[in-house]
Amino acid sequence: MKNNNKKRIGILTGGGDCPGLNAVIRSVVKKAEQVGFEVVGIEDGWQGLVGKVQARELKEKNVRGIMDKGGTMLGSSIINPLKIKDGKKQIVSNFKKLNLSVLIVVGGDGTFAIGKSLPKTFPIIAIPKTIDNDVFGTDFCIGFWSAVETATQALDHLRTTASSHHRAMVLEVMGRDFGWIASYAGLAGGADYIFVPEFEIDVDKVCKTIEKRTKKGKRFSLVVVSEGAKLNKKVSGIKIKDNASVGEKLSKLIKAKAGIETRSVNLGHIVRGGVPSAFDRVLGARMGAEAVKEASKGHSQVGIGLKGDKIIVVPFSRMKGGKKVNSEVYKTASVFFN
Amino acid sequence: MKNNNKKRIGILTGGGDCPGLNAVIRSVVKKAEQVGFEVVGIEDGWQGLVGKVQARELKEKNVRGIMDKGGTMLGSSIINPLKIKDGKKQIVSNFKKLNLSVLIVVGGDGTFAIGKSLPKTFPIIAIPKTIDNDVFGTDFCIGFWSAVETATQALDHLRTTASSHHRAMVLEVMGRDFGWIASYAGLAGGADYIFVPEFEIDVDKVCKTIEKRTKKGKRFSLVVVSEGAKLNKKVSGIKIKDNASVGEKLSKLIKAKAGIETRSVNLGHIVRGGVPSAFDRVLGARMGAEAVKEASKGHSQVGIGLKGDKIIVVPFSRMKGGKKVNSEVYKTASVFFN
Amino acid sequence: MKNNNKKRIGILTGGGDCPGLNAVIRSVVKKAEQVGFEVVGIEDGWQGLVGKVQARELKEKNVRGIMDKGGTMLGSSIINPLKIKDGKKQIVSNFKKLNLSVLIVVGGDGTFAIGKSLPKTFPIIAIPKTIDNDVFGTDFCIGFWSAVETATQALDHLRTTASSHHRAMVLEVMGRDFGWIASYAGLAGGADYIFVPEFEIDVDKVCKTIEKRTKKGKRFSLVVVSEGAKLNKKVSGIKIKDNASVGEKLSKLIKAKAGIETRSVNLGHIVRGGVPSAFDRVLGARMGAEAVKEASKGHSQVGIGLKGDKIIVVPFSRMKGGKKVNSEVYKTASVFFN
Amino acid sequence: MKNNNKKRIGILTGGGDCPGLNAVIRSVVKKAEQVGFEVVGIEDGWQGLVGKVQARELKEKNVRGIMDKGGTMLGSSIINPLKIKDGKKQIVSNFKKLNLSVLIVVGGDGTFAIGKSLPKTFPIIAIPKTIDNDVFGTDFCIGFWSAVETATQALDHLRTTASSHHRAMVLEVMGRDFGWIASYAGLAGGADYIFVPEFEIDVDKVCKTIEKRTKKGKRFSLVVVSEGAKLNKKVSGIKIKDNASVGEKLSKLIKAKAGIETRSVNLGHIVRGGVPSAFDRVLGARMGAEAVKEASKGHSQVGIGLKGDKIIVVPFSRMKGGKKVNSEVYKTASVFFN
Repeated sequence: MKNNNKKRIGILTGGGDCPGLNAVIRSVVKKAEQVGFEVVGIEDGWQGLVGKVQARELKEKNVRGIMDKGGTMLGSSIINPLKIKDGKKQIVSNFKKLNLSVLIVVGGDGTFAIGKSLPKTFPIIAIPKTIDNDVFGTDFCIGFWSAVETATQALDHLRTTASSHHRAMVLEVMGRDFGWIASYAGLAGGADYIFVPEFEIDVDKVCKTIEKRTKKGKRFSLVVVSEGAKLNKKVSGIKIKDNASVGEKLSKLIKAKAGIETRSVNLGHIVRGGVPSAFDRVLGARMGAEAVKEASKGHSQVGIGLKGDKIIVVPFSRMKGGKKVNSEVYKTASVFFN
Repeated sequence: MKNNNKKRIGILTGGGDCPGLNAVIRSVVKKAEQVGFEVVGIEDGWQGLVGKVQARELKEKNVRGIMDKGGTMLGSSIINPLKIKDGKKQIVSNFKKLNLSVLIVVGGDGTFAIGKSLPKTFPIIAIPKTIDNDVFGTDFCIGFWSAVETATQALDHLRTTASSHHRAMVLEVMGRDFGWIASYAGLAGGADYIFVPEFEIDVDKVCKTIEKRTKKGKRFSLVVVSEGAKLNKKVSGIKIKDNASVGEKLSKLIKAKAGIETRSVNLGHIVRGGVPSAFDRVLGARMGAEAVKEASKGHSQVGIGLKGDKIIVVPFSRMKGGKKVNSEVYKTASVFFN
Repeated sequence: MKNNNKKRIGILTGGGDCPGLNAVIRSVVKKAEQVGFEVVGIEDGWQGLVGKVQARELKEKNVRGIMDKGGTMLGSSIINPLKIKDGKKQIVSNFKKLNLSVLIVVGGDGTFAIGKSLPKTFPIIAIPKTIDNDVFGTDFCIGFWSAVETATQALDHLRTTASSHHRAMVLEVMGRDFGWIASYAGLAGGADYIFVPEFEIDVDKVCKTIEKRTKKGKRFSLVVVSEGAKLNKKVSGIKIKDNASVGEKLSKLIKAKAGIETRSVNLGHIVRGGVPSAFDRVLGARMGAEAVKEASKGHSQVGIGLKGDKIIVVPFSRMKGGKKVNSEVYKTASVFFN
Repeated sequence: MKNNNKKRIGILTGGGDCPGLNAVIRSVVKKAEQVGFEVVGIEDGWQGLVGKVQARELKEKNVRGIMDKGGTMLGSSIINPLKIKDGKKQIVSNFKKLNLSVLIVVGGDGTFAIGKSLPKTFPIIAIPKTIDNDVFGTDFCIGFWSAVETATQALDHLRTTASSHHRAMVLEVMGRDFGWIASYAGLAGGADYIFVPEFEIDVDKVCKTIEKRTKKGKRFSLVVVSEGAKLNKKVSGIKIKDNASVGEKLSKLIKAKAGIETRSVNLGHIVRGGVPSAFDRVLGARMGAEAVKEASKGHSQVGIGLKGDKIIVVPFSRMKGGKKVNSEVYKTASVFFN
């Protein structure tokens, strides 16, 4: 790529894809044009900076009409360059070859951890995106609310069948460590019980409540469960194959103990796809523009967050994973458990 | 229930629920009002006529605002009264107790089979509904196109992730015996391969094509599979647990043979829920009105079908399951297999 | 463009755009590849063949990922070459310059009329698309059902407000000459009254019925009106400005005569946009493939239609506008007028 | 209604309806059950407390399955009891008759103003809802994000037509005094220009930019305008009828000055209807539960707000209208104006 006096911003999207990434990319390109920067799109996350560079210049014409497309036009990957011999060196060297002045990294905990392992002088600006919403330093990550909308619609679908057939329906959603999607979608979708990794519920007690519900004429139940939720061991005498998913297990337990026909569905990768919600498009566009603003001031080692309805700038070090679900939301949802 | 001189129509919805049933019920009630009939809603399919009657009169006010609700306000069940001692007798006797002159049965193959086993003098009018669309005597059954829309949207979701991560994604959809949903949604959703019970595809060949695609730079693939599709045995050397679903099996085979990261999702009961599409609301309303028109003429032992954009009346005997997918649609979809 | 021995198909999309056109284009390109034809995409409808040719070759890579995009990637226009000096001559000459063997014309009445005015030897295959659905020779035109879904969703939106505020809401939809969208969406969306060009309803009577409804406790009403519906003159004493749309007029009349707060919305161009429904994607893909099949047999002067769930081939002459709304559908909808 | 020792909460929804109100009502009823309170639903906003009381007790069974319904099951109205003789007195007296201990008022500026005019001893808890989002004391009001989603989808529809036909499309959305919906939906929907009451843009300059765009090959433009935006007078020589809406006016100006075919659509009441987004269902449920918690502590004269992802309690006096659009969002959107 040509080398001129203009400052050049690199941008990559790492980790699992989600809706809203294209809004970030489009916004970075447009804002960069305004402040007189060039933009280089790195392909397939950190992969594009390891080994042979995969990258291309991004102009306004390259990002037209992508606002309402899910996923990321730059591609993503979940490779870990820290596990590749000389991975970090290659990133630093490729960064120089591309003549970049700063790298905008759109990712979650994993993507950021790689960034943090690079030399302190490697200039990074971080934008948090993950449907799991488990990143500190921001109220919400890009992609989270789109995923919640999708999971809520799935519950709206299951409710009509549950109600028509007087069944319990179990919806399993992504969330290996945290129950953000399950809690918010469960509350929005009118779930009768929500199982998440952060809180324990007694399956036995839930089954007994469902049994009682049936007797009172509430003939169906909707249950949401995070893939990483632990079911306690109190339900005895039920054999469940070990490789079953948590949703399947829960479904069997409810059927056996509560005496109600039960079906489970695992929403799987459907939850991370689709047209981004307006919320995520707005959030992505704002974070992208703010990142370029920071770059134009010569700042780096920062992350861009959302605080209320304000875009904020925090130290990059603060932006890391491990954030548990908002417990007030889970408690509000639990008001409906009965 | 009170007994007067007015003719009384009974209506029940049997078998698996689907979007569009409430449009039928609402239409039957409104049309009956117009022709001076009363309507009795039987609860939970044939269940409501076995043992103690479960039924209620339906007036216009009972069916307000249900047009855009999925499922059935009358409930459904998949019980088989033929397997219950005196099941048929109870149906006949309850029909008389309710003082009905005709029974509108909204169902699929199973529901109709029960109707056909009743005495010839038992007056039935059949309305075909099933997301599986496998009933003869009609171009389309109520619920089919709503299910296709839902499955197509799921593919739209999976495509963005497949494309961002350069993966193959396998979507499994309902269809134990026939590939209607898989074929239509696969064609609409841009599937690269579709596996259905009616046609055999060589998994090995598909894997080789995917491998070739990757080399040509088409880095992702979308695959749709009916739950009842048979995978041929030509893929050797891959161990797959027997209780895996067909989608999981296919996913493993593709990963192993085509050398591409692959994920599978089983859409499960999500496909039969949700807000009915306009198509199914229109179809349901028209079939409901036509059924009452037939009743008002004293007709029975007929089924209501859609032929092109015309509502038709066919002998009840013609309305039965077993209809294979439109092979021209599957062939058109297969133009994109490569 | 290069000239070789391969046969070349031209394709253009004319008249108002609609969802489903890209499915046709993609299918034509893929099917052509299968039968060994080349495809040339003409830009902006007939415009691309008048004056300087605007056209480009279409390969598989050019039509990837367009299935779920509304509108037409080829552009459209509503120009009439018959009104341009030598317009027809230029079309014929440009057709030859492009070395085409046949032209697939995706359009409605206007686009087809131009095709019919060309010399008999000009080889055309017609595919009917129009949200207005007024073309003979096919049960449904591409775009119609997507428009109906959009209008139905608009009614679902208006119903919640009408119901919360106890108002009448009037929705005006496209349909200058025929009431297809209004009738189907009105039936699907639970409209209480539908005004279309094909049938006359007495506004005064409707107002009186609304008044009565209010007294009976049905405190809101939904009204759908085609832009081309004529309101009869029986409502007297109400002054309405002449340049008001039919929806605004109707709204004023209802407010004045039925004594209920009334609002109107004109859905305008929103009805012709958006993601195509699965129905239209399937229809477009099938019609596109069939057109190429016809071309590969050396046929022309034909139109491709849908008859039930079958794709049919009809003489081009049969495919013209003027088809009135299915009166049975309107009558079914009118069952709910009271 | 029976009088017992239980504390009784009244709840009313006032002003324009919006998606998310039913989530509040359901949550209030469930949370009240948990803390041992009764709930009385007041009908049609303040109207239900003026003259003859319109109210009914709300139990859990009355609020089942309403989570995904737009509008308000309690009805609303825009009456102003301050303009009715003895209006305030009647409210106070009816409140006592119903034996209420506190009134939860779900509304916007107008509804709250009435509450504030009542005697200081009249115990009120306020929950902010308005698609206009112009209320201080909360980041977002219930209904706002659902409206933004709807307006964004409308833009997604218009974009496909604008692009196919190389036109400018103008979308007018609600917002008499503030440009919240226009700005957020405009940013999300990729608008090329946004006109709001808070900021002035030079129409002449916009037209010139559109003209330039066309020359550069950007052949279509999307414009969003708040109903209350003022167009400056610099565009001369164009006659526009005075009673035209701002969208129509803008459309005419663009057509005349930028020389591009232009169409306008007024989204009208469609923007306030439909299925609530997950965001608004979650927000409604949380605010409803918090209001009851406040009531259970004996608090009143407070409002419930959202601050980041926290539910907060603020003095009722702080909760009032007049909040201008977030200027950073508008500025981010304006990065795309060119």
